[in-house]
Parts: sequence; structure tokens; C-alpha cells
Amino acid sequence: MERLDRMIRVARGKAKADVVLRNGRVVNVYTGECVETDVAILGDRIVGLGSYRGAKEYDVAGRFVAPGFIDAHIHLESAMVTVPEFARVVVPMGTTSVVSDPHEIANVMGLEGINYMLRSSKYNPLNVFVMVPSCVPSSPLETPGAVLRATDILFFLNQEWVLGLAEMMDYPGLLACDPAILDKVRIAGRRIIDGHAPGLSGKDLCAYIAAGISSDHECVTEEEAREKLRLGMTVMIREGGCARNMEALLPLVTPATAPHCAFCTDDRHPQALISEGHMNGVLRKAVRLGLDPVTAITLCTLNPARHYGLDGLGAVAPGKIADIVVLEDLDGFSVEMVFKNGRLAAQDGALIPGVPGAPRPPEPLRGSINIQWLAREQFEIPASRGRLRAIALVPGQLLTRLELVKPSVLSGRVVADPGRDLLKIAVIERHHASPNIGLGIVRGFGLTRGAIASSVAHDSHNIVAVGTNDADILEAVIKIRKLQGGLTAVVDGKLIASVALPIAGLMSEKSVREVGDELDALIAAARRMGCRLEDPFMMLSFLSLSVIPELKLTDKGLVDVSAQKIVPLFAQERAGGKGARR
Amino acid sequence: MERLDRMIRVARGKAKADVVLRNGRVVNVYTGECVETDVAILGDRIVGLGSYRGAKEYDVAGRFVAPGFIDAHIHLESAMVTVPEFARVVVPMGTTSVVSDPHEIANVMGLEGINYMLRSSKYNPLNVFVMVPSCVPSSPLETPGAVLRATDILFFLNQEWVLGLAEMMDYPGLLACDPAILDKVRIAGRRIIDGHAPGLSGKDLCAYIAAGISSDHECVTEEEAREKLRLGMTVMIREGGCARNMEALLPLVTPATAPHCAFCTDDRHPQALISEGHMNGVLRKAVRLGLDPVTAITLCTLNPARHYGLDGLGAVAPGKIADIVVLEDLDGFSVEMVFKNGRLAAQDGALIPGVPGAPRPPEPLRGSINIQWLAREQFEIPASRGRLRAIALVPGQLLTRLELVKPSVLSGRVVADPGRDLLKIAVIERHHASPNIGLGIVRGFGLTRGAIASSVAHDSHNIVAVGTNDADILEAVIKIRKLQGGLTAVVDGKLIASVALPIAGLMSEKSVREVGDELDALIAAARRMGCRLEDPFMMLSFLSLSVIPELKLTDKGLVDVSAQKIVPLFAQERAGGKGARR
Repeated sequence: MERLDRMIRVARGKAKADVVLRNGRVVNVYTGECVETDVAILGDRIVGLGSYRGAKEYDVAGRFVAPGFIDAHIHLESAMVTVPEFARVVVPMGTTSVVSDPHEIANVMGLEGINYMLRSSKYNPLNVFVMVPSCVPSSPLETPGAVLRATDILFFLNQEWVLGLAEMMDYPGLLACDPAILDKVRIAGRRIIDGHAPGLSGKDLCAYIAAGISSDHECVTEEEAREKLRLGMTVMIREGGCARNMEALLPLVTPATAPHCAFCTDDRHPQALISEGHMNGVLRKAVRLGLDPVTAITLCTLNPARHYGLDGLGAVAPGKIADIVVLEDLDGFSVEMVFKNGRLAAQDGALIPGVPGAPRPPEPLRGSINIQWLAREQFEIPASRGRLRAIALVPGQLLTRLELVKPSVLSGRVVADPGRDLLKIAVIERHHASPNIGLGIVRGFGLTRGAIASSVAHDSHNIVAVGTNDADILEAVIKIRKLQGGLTAVVDGKLIASVALPIAGLMSEKSVREVGDELDALIAAARRMGCRLEDPFMMLSFLSLSVIPELKLTDKGLVDVSAQKIVPLFAQERAGGKGARR
Repeated sequence: MERLDRMIRVARGKAKADVVLRNGRVVNVYTGECVETDVAILGDRIVGLGSYRGAKEYDVAGRFVAPGFIDAHIHLESAMVTVPEFARVVVPMGTTSVVSDPHEIANVMGLEGINYMLRSSKYNPLNVFVMVPSCVPSSPLETPGAVLRATDILFFLNQEWVLGLAEMMDYPGLLACDPAILDKVRIAGRRIIDGHAPGLSGKDLCAYIAAGISSDHECVTEEEAREKLRLGMTVMIREGGCARNMEALLPLVTPATAPHCAFCTDDRHPQALISEGHMNGVLRKAVRLGLDPVTAITLCTLNPARHYGLDGLGAVAPGKIADIVVLEDLDGFSVEMVFKNGRLAAQDGALIPGVPGAPRPPEPLRGSINIQWLAREQFEIPASRGRLRAIALVPGQLLTRLELVKPSVLSGRVVADPGRDLLKIAVIERHHASPNIGLGIVRGFGLTRGAIASSVAHDSHNIVAVGTNDADILEAVIKIRKLQGGLTAVVDGKLIASVALPIAGLMSEKSVREVGDELDALIAAARRMGCRLEDPFMMLSFLSLSVIPELKLTDKGLVDVSAQKIVPLFAQERAGGKGARR
């Protein structure tokens, strides 16, 4: 019998369902209620709510039956594990779909990287929808591994699982009508284009939206979010790793506005996955902050499904895909069972072994660390007249300040001076073995010895290193090459801790737990080296992001972000300053 | 300069807008507020909210600026005028889009009829979206002018302006897995399929929804609507001509459920258009019944737009099509101006003369009244033994009751007996000049002399006539043929009132006002003929609809609707009855 006939017959109770969840309290995202009823499943679809019998029945009396959770926007690479490993961890937490933007790996490996993510997203009990990265590279002031042009994007837009164009970060380019940016917008056509426009407001925001950008996940204040909402954007409330906006934005969510809000994580690091979970953790926090639990669930089920036009997802209702979470409660969000496409996929915190669609190891990817032969001399900074532009960290934030400092000089070379917390920072181009090395001075890490380095360095993911001496910086970088990507801590020429990230220099082949433990050990090592930051490697990974103010360093040199240009390390006296001082 | 560039520049305030509405209170369907601001328009698009200057400016201070109204479901034929005339009347009332189901004309003229509606929908300042009729004919118990098969439907599904498959009325066929019905559902694929399932509940409703039907406009009780809403349907609250459900259903509309509700009229007759208006009248009533005005507006703007995936419609926000209504107030809903695609289309109740896109007369359509040569004898009913199944009207409702009556007999023929309010009813096949005439007896019209007839007769639109004598019935039918369709009232062989409906026997070429006046005169004539019904012609037009219980008459004969079969006029003693009575 044909599928449609069978659905009708089973829904009508004329034939047995495949699976029935009995007597659960179904979370109804259409009416905001919880209604006690059975849920009948045939194949991968929910076919009926009512009283049903099935070939396989689960008694879920007293438990809540909710739609599978959707993360509306995430860069999976930030979890530092493969997609199957990510799925293995988040599916038992109730996540059944993510809308991913493979922006990090695209910066390293271009089409090959996106294809790798698409390939490794198959066969998992997790829908991995993809938004094609719109801004690779994020700026011309750094050297990425690949450039995505409008025609490259077109290739992906027509693929299965691809929903549209990912966060349009280059809003200055769009507002300036940069032809390359507008081509991408035109090529997206009627597909969804997600936004990324921190602080954009007024007429510039109108222009951004009029051009077709329909969401934003960068709001940090209620006022900012309300303006975006009023203008028709879906506001994605981000509760991520580096950026957490829920507390500030939750007052925005009223019955009137809730249909236009969604939850996303943007980035979820291994330690956060372990300690807080994924969307279950986001829900837990939302309810703790006072949001109605059913509304909260709607923000990570029906609402993202509607934003992305995923008609089959986001609700426990006839005709929908049977992606279902069975919850013990609506405050702790303890997940008892997760059904994916109608099959029990996870129970009591673990994937069911051997379910069809369970993880397989993804195919290997070529090495991505391709650096020139390095010598210590390349890290030397010749001294010059005047003050030096140092990058000053701002604790707890990704932005930095420009600080004019008097450099410490030894034998005509600018050297790190740990006593003044002035460390050397280097960004080494790692994609094309070019001679590009950016050099500078950073304040705020507090290292008293050794060096740390990372091949995770937004957005081009060159190698960034910070250290107290050139020899340890060189060694930390060389160790990353040996690992084919990763994070390292070196003291006196010896590697004292590391995390290998051989997949594009971004992701490990190990488990979330192992990577989390390695990261903890690495951070502990950095602390022993004198570092005072909570997560020095996360901070390090944003020091080359040339679109976040104020002063950054790329492989091309020091970037004045506001001016969007490379500036010399040594500042001449500021123009208009009173009285020259040399 | 390219369009996208211009939009961005104008939105940013770097260039003048084409049109600016200044200082209005913009009805925000995303947040439920009214916010005072300018609205800037470029070409057919809204590009910005804020402070703008334009080549043309309208001061709308103190007025409300709302999205153009959308009727989520309407059969335009019920207005009995052409589409341009309908547009001429409803656009000044604020309606800028309708989702139409050309089901009536499809029953008469099939593909040609649907094409006619599509053609005549062009060049009007009204978006006429089309859902392809799913059930033509509505039942095999009558003779339609055309049959729409799945392949015919496919042809239309791929046309511009066509959104999906219209109300799936044959829910019994769908639930029984009738292959012809399921083919239509399969062919619709991922397109919207609207529903029509009065009273359907429980597992049968689940099956209907699981098959892909996503809306319903037939709910009459809050309970019924709530069940449909819970199962994921969009509930279209109908406030139409024959059927008015708003009062019963409005308690359903809460902040939680509102996003899944919409308003529709289903049918809007000429007199109602004149006396109550269109969606403006629906809004007026909703607010009078206590609904928040902005929520009410959302139900006929954003919500239907989202249901049908019309991303560019339903809101006053950047990037949306500039379909805008300027209202004097949010209780009377007095419409001051209407902008369609960014141009002023109507002001103070009338279309702007000569605006591009103003009505043009639609192309003529072939005659649709094709009946055999009739003789009075064909209306004779030979007397027989036993009681007769009479159709008994139920005042104010479309359903009828079966009444077993003792016929009045003269010279071996059953005759109308106005003294007992037993009139003769005839349905004459009018598409293929076949010899089909259905004959019966009806109670409830109260005519004391003459006959009335109509070529509007749901759903096959054969000619239905009711009269006190065969000669007047014959004459009333012949007059319809002479008019090439319409409504007639005949007394003693003379036409005393009529409405010509030469377009498919359903629509006039005159204005709404003229048709309304003619209808008023016609109904007045019927009153003078003794009729006690409020609108005898509307009642007449539903007496051949073989899907509304209990007893109906088609050209094939008397229909027992529940049994879905033709039954003889004369009832034998009921089976199981105690003691034969002859």
C-alpha cells in the first residue's frame, strides 16, 4: 500500500501504528498548552494524537512530549569535534535539528570544507541544515584559506539540506553596495538570508532588511532587539559560548512578539556542552529567568522551523516528522527519550547503540597546516622611534583597545616584557605557506613565561601565538604544525599541554569529553604560566578577527578595525596633538 | 543603477524615496503596537521606517498605516461581478490581496473557467492568488460542466499566482483513500492544501491533517476550532455571506493562538459588499466583539501571508510590497487611502482613475447555458403509491430535512400545492443539453404564485427552479436561457424581475451596485409572490448541493446526502417499520 494511504489508515485507527507514545502530556506549540494524549507514529511521521495502539508502545505517562529542539544558528566547528560526535552528544539532550553555518571551515578549506561538513552530517540522528557562508573571508585585511564568491555560493544553494545564505556579516559592504556582496544577495533570491548586524539601527538597519536580510542573532540590548523585531526580523536570542544575550533580551519576549523570536547558541564549546548541555540548557535558563516553559520550547521548535520554512518540523502534530523529546519536567528539562524520524534514538542521556543513522566516522580530510619554514629571526620586531600600538584586552569581551605604549627594546629589537604584561603576538599565515607574519604587542594575557598558540583564529584561522619570548613562540607554532592544527602551550622549548585539532586545524577526532578534558588541562597549564584569563585560548582565537574593534592583528599586520586598514606598529605622534614628543 | 542598490541607498536616506507617508501611526503586526513614523517607498517596495523625504509625500498624521488586507479564502464568483469590478469595490475598502478558489466557474467551464478568472485578475490593483479547485465536481450525483482531474490540476499548480490546492471538500473520499483524491494530494506535493471539513474530529481529523491539509474555514464552534488548532491547522475564521462564524470563534483567539488564526469571507454577495464592506467590515465586527484591533489586523495581514508563504506581504516593514491602508480609526476602520504596489490606488472610497493597473474589461467568455428544448410535460411528476420525499427547508441554514408527505395529485400527476407550501422543484442540466431533469417537492419557500429560477446552483450550477405551477417553472428556466444565465422570477408566464449573469451563468458584467439593486428588486418580487424567506435565491442555490445533508435535488434526481445515493421520489414503507401502511 502506498505511504499516503497507510498514513490515513493508521491515523484513522484502522491499522496499527509503528510506534505509540502513550499518555504523555503533549507540549502544544500552537496553543501554549500541555494536553494528555497518545502520539501515533508511522514511519518517520507523526500521524495522530488521540488514543492509539502500536506495534511498539512506550508508556510516557506523567512525562512531557515535546517537539525535538532546533538550534536556529550554530557554527558546529566551535564544538571542536566532528559532526557525528556532536550529534552523539546533543541528540540525547533533545536536539534533533541544527541550522549550521560552516563558516570556520569554509575560511580554511572553502568548498572542500563545506562539502566535508555536508558529508559528515549524513547518517546521524540529527538534521544538520546548512546556511552557506556569505562572508569568506570576513575582510580583505587577512589571508584566508579560500575565498567564496557568489558563483561558489550558488553551487551550494541548490543542494539538499541547504536553506539559504548565512549571516551577512559584511553589513558595511552591503550598505556601501559592494557589488560582490550584492551579487551574493541577488543569487540567494527568495531564499532565507540570515543577518549579523550588531548595533545596526535606524535607516542603515532598514536598508539591511530591505535588501532581504531577515534575522539577527547579535542583539545585546532589549532596545536593539525591539527595533529589529519591529522591522520584521526574526530575533534569534543567542545563548552561546562567548556571547550570552538571553538575560538582556528575555524581557522582549511577550505573547505578541514571541512568534518572531527564536533561540540559538551560535557557538558551543566542548566544556559548555558538558557542563550546560545544548538547547536543553538554554531552555533551563530561560525558564529559570521566568519565561513560560511552553513559550520557551516554542522558541526552539516551531519558531525556527517557521523562520526557515521547515514545514515538517517544530511541532508534535499529525503530518510532522516524528522528532520528539520526552522530558521528565519543564524546569530542569531532563531528557528521558529522544525520537528521531520516528525511531528511538536516545535514552537516558545516551544514543541507542546501532540505531539506523547512528554515527559513522567521517571521511578523512587533507591536512590544512601549510606554513613556510620558520626561523626565530622572523619573529623579531626592529625597534623604531616613538610609541607602539599595543592591543589591550578587555576582560570578558571580544573587543580590544588600542594602547600606545613605550616598547621595551633590547639590542635594537622590541621584546616582550612580562613585567609590564607586554607580550609578543604573532599571526602566521598557514594556508599557502606564504611569508606573511603579522607581529605586535598585546597586553592582558599576563603570561610570565613560555608561549601559547592556536590554529583556531577567527575568521581566517591562521596561527596566532602569544608569548614571552620568540623561541617559545616559534616552538608553539611548530608544535601546531606537527599536530596538523590545534592549541599548544610551550615553556622553555617544551610542549607542556596541547589539544590536537587535525580537522582543518579546528576540530578533533576525539570525543567531546576528551577534548573538554584536554582543554581544561591546557588552560590549567596556561594558568601555571601566569595567565590570568578565564579562557586564554578563546581570547587568543579572536585577536585576529579584523571586524571586531578596536585593534587586531592578522597575517598582514596590525588592523585598525574602525578604519578598516593596516596600520604600522609604531605610531607617529597623533595629528593635532599639542607639542611634538619624540 | 540596479534595483537592489537603489533600495539600499534610499533606505539609508542617501537618495529620495518615490513616496513617503509622513507621521502616520504604523500598525506593527510583529509587536502588536502602533508606532509613529514615516514610511518610505521605492517602486513597489517599502524600504524604510523612520524620518524620510520623498518625491511625493502624503501627510498621514493622526491616521493609522496598516498592511493591505488579505482575504484568506474567497470564491469571487459569489460576488456575482467580474474580478475587475470586485477589485474596484474592495480595493477602496483596504483589501489588496485575496486568495481565491474559482471553484464555481470551474464546475461550469473547467480549465476555461479557471483561465478566465486568471486572465481577468490581471491589471487590477488587487492581488488575486488562486488555489486550484480540488473537488470538481463535488460529487458523482450531479452533472457538472467539467471535471478536473489530477493532471488538470497539475497544469495550474505550476502557474504564477497559483499557491496550491483549494479546500479539500471531499474529506470522506480522502479518508476512504479514494485514489483520485489521493492523486490530487500527491500532485500538490509540498504546496499548501486548504481544508474544508465541517465537524471533522478525532482520528479522522488527524488523518485529514496527516495527509497534508493545513487549514480549515468551516469551524462553527470554539471547541471544533480549538481541536483543529491544536493539531496544527490554520483556523480561518469565516465571516461570509451564508456562514458567519466570528461570534462563535472569537473566544478562541488568544495571544498564544492568534498566530495560527486568520479571517476569511468564503463568500461575499453584492448586497453584503455594499452594506458591510469586505475585510474592513470583518475587522469592524471583530473589534466590536472585543478583539484587540492590532491583533484583528494581524489576522487579515501577516497571518494569511505566512500561511500561504507570501513573504512579501502582510506587514509594513522594509522589503515588503507596499500594499498599505491608511485608516482614520481602528474601530470603524474608515479607509482614507489605499496604496497598491507603492502607488496610491484608492482614496476616500473610490479607485484613483487611470492608475496603472486599473480595471480593464475582461475578455468575453462563451455562453454556458446549453439546455435541451424544453416542454412543459417534462416537468410533470407521475403520481405513485405511498408518501413522497419532500425537501424541507430549515430557516437560516443550508441543510435541509427529509419530510415524508402525502402528495397533492391532479389527473394522475403530483402537483404543487401552495396551500400546504408544497412547491415543485426542478433541476435542469444546463451544460451538455442532456435530457437530465430532476424533479421533486420542496416545503418552506411559501410562494403562492409563479416560479423562481437560478443558474447559480452549487456546485454544478445547473438550473434550479421552484414554482407553484409547471408553466411558470418552464418560463422561468427559458428566461434564464435567454439571459444566458441569471436569476428569474415569473408570474403567469411573465418575467417580473431578473438578474442577468451571462458570465458562466454566475456573474454579471454590471457593477456591484447595479447587481445589488437588481437582486433587491428580485427578492422584493419574490416576496410579493408570497415567499417568506430572507433570501430565497441564496436558499435556492444550495438546494442542489449534494454534500450538505439531508435531502437535495440534482439533475440526476433526489439525493439522500448521508447515504450519498439517488433515491426515488416516492418512499416505500420504511424497512423495519411496524405494520405496512399503503
